[in-house]
Amino acid sequence: MEVLEAIRTRRSIRHYKPDPVPEEDINAILEAARWAPSWRNNQCWRFIIVKDKERKALLASTLPSWNRAQSAIKEAPVVIVACAELGKSGFHEGKVATNKGEWWYMFDVALAMQNLTLAAHSLGLGTVHIGAFDAQKVAQLLAVPQGVAVVEMALLGYPAEIGKTPSRKELSELVFFENYGQR
Amino acid sequence: MEVLEAIRTRRSIRHYKPDPVPEEDINAILEAARWAPSWRNNQCWRFIIVKDKERKALLASTLPSWNRAQSAIKEAPVVIVACAELGKSGFHEGKVATNKGEWWYMFDVALAMQNLTLAAHSLGLGTVHIGAFDAQKVAQLLAVPQGVAVVEMALLGYPAEIGKTPSRKELSELVFFENYGQR
Repeated sequence: MEVLEAIRTRRSIRHYKPDPVPEEDINAILEAARWAPSWRNNQCWRFIIVKDKERKALLASTLPSWNRAQSAIKEAPVVIVACAELGKSGFHEGKVATNKGEWWYMFDVALAMQNLTLAAHSLGLGTVHIGAFDAQKVAQLLAVPQGVAVVEMALLGYPAEIGKTPSRKELSELVFFENYGQR
Repeated sequence: MEVLEAIRTRRSIRHYKPDPVPEEDINAILEAARWAPSWRNNQCWRFIIVKDKERKALLASTLPSWNRAQSAIKEAPVVIVACAELGKSGFHEGKVATNKGEWWYMFDVALAMQNLTLAAHSLGLGTVHIGAFDAQKVAQLLAVPQGVAVVEMALLGYPAEIGKTPSRKELSELVFFENYGQR
């Protein structure tokens, strides 16, 4: 699938078929994540592949009640829990280098995860990002050690719905020239 | 260009030809950014397009001496300064919803910027992410108001070099199964 078409037609998928995802497809999308750029090529991203039913139910229990994705976690055949090794992204010679502190790991993991979701879509697979959950509980459940942050969960599987297209702001609202606010 | 090929062949470009970038290509890659997903579709991203020579030199002056991208900023015909409206990403009913606080804006802006760099590459254009600079100085230079964070600069132009391929960790180092550390 062409890049621009993939970007334009990717949707967040919240209903999945039970069909398993072929191992080679899981590998291909993790490969795509691996080739993202990162702060000084630190590659802080780590991925936990969860397929076990009981574990997925436990992951779902870490979501707040207002998060619509609880049942989707149990439906999706694969949950990819994206983590980050701390103390790498955003640092220079052991010190934080910008006013974003250590939070560049959020940026780097997202670069990798956008590669992952586009690669998945190009292979006919659906994904959705889940950010609102109790990350400390997930860290406990999946034995994530100190010094590693749980960032997000991405669900992966064959779509059982046509994803909705939430509206987007027009470029004229988002883009300025030479100065902020200048159109 | 195919998605997986674009992901695999994209490189960070630090030398640019002086040739201007056609307006329709700039629009196409901003369109790609606009279609990224974001926390509850908040679309906090904002983009400032800087082409003015003196402004680019001022932007370059906000980099620390160890950042290799100073001359690249002056070379590239276009600098895209990515910003984020604060208080949207990571929030639910006006309160931060996770242990990442307000820093989900780093995640959302990165999703958009990865779309942008892949779209650029598919059109034969080079990019590089620059995160290490004095964001407060840039905010002053470009009249970025309170409540908006300057996140990163992405350079855009026709590559005047073949980008290097920094090594990547093997998937076996990055991917675990069911538990962190379990291979």
